[in-house]
Amino acid sequence: MKREFAVIGLGRFGGSVCRELSREGMEVLAIDTTESKVNEFRNIASHAVIADATDEKVLKELGIRNIDHVIVAIGEDIQASILTTLMLKELGIKKITVKAQNDYHEKVLIKIGADQVIHPERDMGKKIAHSIISSNILDHLELSDDHSIVEIKASNKIVGRTLVDLDIRANYGCNVVAIKSGESKEINVSPMATERILDGDTLVIIGADKDISRFEKQLVIED
Amino acid sequence: MKREFAVIGLGRFGGSVCRELSREGMEVLAIDTTESKVNEFRNIASHAVIADATDEKVLKELGIRNIDHVIVAIGEDIQASILTTLMLKELGIKKITVKAQNDYHEKVLIKIGADQVIHPERDMGKKIAHSIISSNILDHLELSDDHSIVEIKASNKIVGRTLVDLDIRANYGCNVVAIKSGESKEINVSPMATERILDGDTLVIIGADKDISRFEKQLVIED
Ligand SMILES: Nc1ncnc2c1ncn2[C@@H]1O[C@H](COP(=O)(O)OP(=O)(O)OP(=O)(O)O)[C@@H](O)[C@H]1O
Ligand SMILES: Nc1ncnc2c1ncn2[C@@H]1O[C@H](COP(=O)(O)OP(=O)(O)OP(=O)(O)O)[C@@H](O)[C@H]1O
Ligand SMILES: [Ca+2]
Ligand SMILES: [Ca+2]
Ligand SMILES: [Ca+2]
Ligand SMILES: [Ca+2]
Repeated sequence: MKREFAVIGLGRFGGSVCRELSREGMEVLAIDTTESKVNEFRNIASHAVIADATDEKVLKELGIRNIDHVIVAIGEDIQASILTTLMLKELGIKKITVKAQNDYHEKVLIKIGADQVIHPERDMGKKIAHSIISSNILDHLELSDDHSIVEIKASNKIVGRTLVDLDIRANYGCNVVAIKSGESKEINVSPMATERILDGDTLVIIGADKDISRFEKQLVIED
Repeated sequence: MKREFAVIGLGRFGGSVCRELSREGMEVLAIDTTESKVNEFRNIASHAVIADATDEKVLKELGIRNIDHVIVAIGEDIQASILTTLMLKELGIKKITVKAQNDYHEKVLIKIGADQVIHPERDMGKKIAHSIISSNILDHLELSDDHSIVEIKASNKIVGRTLVDLDIRANYGCNVVAIKSGESKEINVSPMATERILDGDTLVIIGADKDISRFEKQLVIED
């Protein structure tokens, strides 16, 4: 069941969206004003066209009306982003996601009917700030205000020990849901209690934030 | 225990990193060549200075040597990003994180000693693509190229059934690592096999992407 998407603006963000949708087998129409960008996506997207999305005639000719979900990833040119969104809305596109530059831009986009407004740089900045504060936490998924899943690098206090030996569940109230091997880069999503943690491994841990941070303080931060 | 950070380049990404580190009580030195950017951070960062980070003399005068971790978030000007990283390395900064524009940029950064290279737009693009493909997938943590953790809304094909009854592990190769209750908003990070899934619940599932997508196709997408 392929669905139809269009990505307008193939910068780093829009390009990545286009690439990932295509990799997952989706039909994607890729649009950019810059020929070199479009060429980059000729063998990736189902269709890649050089076009100015602020030109309503062009949008119509591309059959954009038949597309379920359009992602507008035009960056610096806020006016083009707004104008494109407005026209997509008028053409009756059901779902429009737009990348915003700032709060003012977001406000206008919502007013004119964007369904979803995103701030990739801002969101990623927050995420990175948290991983920087705790340099052992490689990645982080917030499940709720007080629960998370984190990827933690195995410290020398952990390497060589087994899960049953560490008894993380009883001692810290967290669960190890996966182990990423540093060497093979493989992921074991059903680690056994007898699993021995090796140098370079990453533990994927779920739990309450306070439990994770206790675990981290006692077992991860190297003296 | 405040640690000292510096953020060079206060664009959307660097600005967000600076804001979040400051919000978490960290000491941050904010640097940008553009006066208006620096003014924006005067009341946010511990120090905010207008300076060109490619000027070694300036970096020294700012006492950057005493800073534990420097984040280089210079964007378009790849040359400035590389030169700044090189000088920070020569000044003996222990931890240098750099935002890259593309793979070539990343390669050079690693060669000259950057400790961490990040691609905020690319990573966020992937994340958004996944949430776009499946509106049932509420959130997504990429563990590797082919493994993820996802939050999936319980569909009517699942509600009322137990984990043992669904036998997700045997049937789909994925594990349910947590259940978020729709009602109490509580999170159970050690769901038992006899746990019954209720309306409004969200399942947190870990597995290979292909297994998760098979699970989703058969048990989540409503007919
Ligand atoms: N009117 C338009 N129609 C189609 N594409 C456009 C239009 N205006 C700009 N673009 C394209 O949008 C893309 C993204 O724009 P820009 O580089 O300004 O954004 P950005 O926020 O810096 O991107 P990123 O951070 O994701 O790399 C560019 O490749 C640009 O050519
Ligand atoms: N040599 C330099 N020293 C200090 N700051 C610099 C230097 N060169 C550029 N900057 C600043 O870095 C910031 C980010 O650069 P730029 O806007 O090119 O990146 P970007 O990738 O488009 O950013 P974002 O997507 O995060 O908004 C800008 O505010 C710019 O003024
Ligand atoms: Ca950007
Ligand atoms: Ca910019
Ligand atoms: Ca840019
Ligand atoms: Ca990751």
